Amino acid sequence: MQLLSSVVIDKLSRQAVYLQIANQLMSLIRKGTLPSGYRLMSTRQLASMLNVHRRTVVLAYDELLAQGWLESHVGNGTFVAKNFPEIKLSRSDEHTKKQIKPSKKAGFEVPILSHLNRSVLKSGTGLHLDDGFPDARLAPLEELSRAYRSQLLTGNSYARLGYGDTHGSLWLRQELSVYLNETRGLNTTIANILIVRGTIMGLYLVSAGLLKPGDNVVVSELGWAGANNNFLQAGANLLTIPSDDYGIDLDALEKLCLKQPIRLLYVTSHHHYPTTVALRADRRVRLLQLAEQFGFIIFEDDYDYDFHYLSKPLLPLAGADQAGMVLYCGSFTKAISPVFRVGYLVGPENAIAHLAKLRRIIDRQGDTILENALADLLQNGVIQRHLRKSLRVYRQRRDLFCELLNMELENYVEFQVPDGGMAVWTKFDQKIDLPLLAQKALKKDLYFSDGSAHQQYSRIKNTTRLGFASSDPHELEKSVTILKNLI
Amino acid sequence: MQLLSSVVIDKLSRQAVYLQIANQLMSLIRKGTLPSGYRLMSTRQLASMLNVHRRTVVLAYDELLAQGWLESHVGNGTFVAKNFPEIKLSRSDEHTKKQIKPSKKAGFEVPILSHLNRSVLKSGTGLHLDDGFPDARLAPLEELSRAYRSQLLTGNSYARLGYGDTHGSLWLRQELSVYLNETRGLNTTIANILIVRGTIMGLYLVSAGLLKPGDNVVVSELGWAGANNNFLQAGANLLTIPSDDYGIDLDALEKLCLKQPIRLLYVTSHHHYPTTVALRADRRVRLLQLAEQFGFIIFEDDYDYDFHYLSKPLLPLAGADQAGMVLYCGSFTKAISPVFRVGYLVGPENAIAHLAKLRRIIDRQGDTILENALADLLQNGVIQRHLRKSLRVYRQRRDLFCELLNMELENYVEFQVPDGGMAVWTKFDQKIDLPLLAQKALKKDLYFSDGSAHQQYSRIKNTTRLGFASSDPHELEKSVTILKNLI
Repeated sequence: MQLLSSVVIDKLSRQAVYLQIANQLMSLIRKGTLPSGYRLMSTRQLASMLNVHRRTVVLAYDELLAQGWLESHVGNGTFVAKNFPEIKLSRSDEHTKKQIKPSKKAGFEVPILSHLNRSVLKSGTGLHLDDGFPDARLAPLEELSRAYRSQLLTGNSYARLGYGDTHGSLWLRQELSVYLNETRGLNTTIANILIVRGTIMGLYLVSAGLLKPGDNVVVSELGWAGANNNFLQAGANLLTIPSDDYGIDLDALEKLCLKQPIRLLYVTSHHHYPTTVALRADRRVRLLQLAEQFGFIIFEDDYDYDFHYLSKPLLPLAGADQAGMVLYCGSFTKAISPVFRVGYLVGPENAIAHLAKLRRIIDRQGDTILENALADLLQNGVIQRHLRKSLRVYRQRRDLFCELLNMELENYVEFQVPDGGMAVWTKFDQKIDLPLLAQKALKKDLYFSDGSAHQQYSRIKNTTRLGFASSDPHELEKSVTILKNLI
Repeated sequence: MQLLSSVVIDKLSRQAVYLQIANQLMSLIRKGTLPSGYRLMSTRQLASMLNVHRRTVVLAYDELLAQGWLESHVGNGTFVAKNFPEIKLSRSDEHTKKQIKPSKKAGFEVPILSHLNRSVLKSGTGLHLDDGFPDARLAPLEELSRAYRSQLLTGNSYARLGYGDTHGSLWLRQELSVYLNETRGLNTTIANILIVRGTIMGLYLVSAGLLKPGDNVVVSELGWAGANNNFLQAGANLLTIPSDDYGIDLDALEKLCLKQPIRLLYVTSHHHYPTTVALRADRRVRLLQLAEQFGFIIFEDDYDYDFHYLSKPLLPLAGADQAGMVLYCGSFTKAISPVFRVGYLVGPENAIAHLAKLRRIIDRQGDTILENALADLLQNGVIQRHLRKSLRVYRQRRDLFCELLNMELENYVEFQVPDGGMAVWTKFDQKIDLPLLAQKALKKDLYFSDGSAHQQYSRIKNTTRLGFASSDPHELEKSVTILKNLI
């Protein structure tokens, strides 16, 4: 009886009482306090001692019987198991007398991925001139909710809610194929489309599936760290080329190609990230020619194709790619909202089949219900209508925001009105301490990036992206007023 | 007017009529049929010519105006845009006068991943004795739908539908921490939990993030190819140990450890896959000791913890892990339905932080809305009630199915009634050609695996898993009758 005197119940604990008892008994067995072959008191006795219901102690004993810590001999009682291996005490057991906590630190070696240290986006502020995100308030959420419900509840649940195709929902691929062909001048079939969880997964699959350590990957000096991280993680060697008002510099690219084999080029052709400029038509033709000539993959990240405000719909490179050099990636992240992790990787059939194999071991399949709900909205034109509306609204916001910048911050900022996208590439006067300004703004409930992410690979200083799409006119005015007051 | 004579409307097309018109006009402009500066006929004229409503043509013109293919001069009419970049015709353009097709074959080298060739699950049949899947008809879909809707539509959409934490929804991690501590005897905080998209992503992250090429990974001879594929893809060297009625053979493991450094051991401790047996208590203690002694990671895949039919809730190894050797992974895939790609990887804080970094470049974040909806259901006990109900139902199905096997197929099958899980490990008489039987069954609308996946690493013959959980009593009877008639 004495041996069990240390058992205590914490009624305030999150842990069920029977588990508390079981765990403490287990601990006593492991420590040798309750030796092998020891006969435990009856459940009635222990219940009375602990002032709990007998059923609770029965549960605890059952637990330990089941786990093999105890043995029950019919008509004879319950004993600490005999053929139990002797257990060495570890020091922490002796000290703590408590439940085992998972250690904070692993007992095995954990590598450092220092190239993957990225600052995390803030989205807790009331105001935000962000990296160029959409306004979820415009999104067809009611329609999406109904479509999701319908996909969840209607039809044969075994087929619909079971394992599906790693390539993504067939229905969504069919709708996307039509949609991409119509809106982007592509000519896809479903075999050219792999549904991914946003552009980032497209990049990951291509990096992990098509790059070998040491492969040369060309990115813009001034580009997107998110893409670079993926190439670096795959062991690629990053080479950079400059970009100007018409996109990436293809003379520089050709020089690189003449010096060494290039495996992949990453380009945001429609709106260069972060500067927002479009890759000019002649460069597009030449880029495809270079890819064919030197045999490199073009990863075309078309992250905000849908939002272009001039009478200039620049069709993706992918639509003019005859030699199968382009992997084209887009998503609903910017078109609807970041939370909907559905995108599409478009490319030659064998490349898509290969990348789908890899995707199968990463997360098996996408969100079939959401994918089907989006297919429903595409088929019924809901997304198309949403995009037309958003385009109109964002154009107005762009115009207002640029006007506000001109009026209120005239002497402090330089920028070009962007032809497309959801952010203005804004250069602040050199006298302004941008990181400090960003910190002060945060205290006024306004988030914007201090641009440090863009200054890694280039001579860019004091320049950042200010997103206008996610704020309504009133919010844009308040945001600019805050900036004005702080400067 | 002649220039537009080729425009035709397909009223049966899925494409909106105005888009059909717009796309055909665009195509005529791109081909040069409609030259720059050309004045289009009025919307009224074209509407009359095409026999559509004028509004439809206005929409088509608007679309092309917006896209910059057309220009409108007030009071003067609508013209093909002037400052449109000249488009060079590529050769295929000239030949086909059609859109360019993406080539079936990439112009770059695509590697072969032959170790990732796995047969694909069938789920198109009416009857299925599957690998051990849940019955989605039992799932709380109505509650889930309501919770999803509420997460989608309520609150600050910028924060809720924007980018979130790569570790997963905070709410879900909080609820899971309580839930896992209560049901599995763990003692986690949210810092020990990374939400993943099912066990497969847990395996992928650990393989890609903690294994180096050439690392030794120990798996059971008779194990799960899905896990092996991940280890192989990471370049690991697979070593195998036998398993028996009490789980994996630890003498064999110790021998391996004495011969070479082992980086990771994969174990399905609760119900060994595919044989369904539980790892005995004494082996659990010894396994943890071996891990500490030899410094290897234990990947504990607890894929169907919730379904154990004896009074034997075997707590995971993770709960007794003091040295931080165990990475524990579970999911809602089996608890609710495979379509819900939400699982959890539990481990030491630094390992979780490391794996989250890697996850960030793979798919950025999980499905926040679904994660929050599941948190809601956990907080309100809906999932817990569902699991209690499922456990009861599956126990009945197990009993019925085993009875049917005994009665109807007595001379043809051998099996042990499984203490847990959702499938019976069934050995067919050697005279039966199992692949042929599976093929014949498929023609009768009954799917079951011929077991070939299990025969890769072992001397197992003519044995397969027959899942009982996803079929109701009537379906189980029909399925066994089909097998009986075919044998």
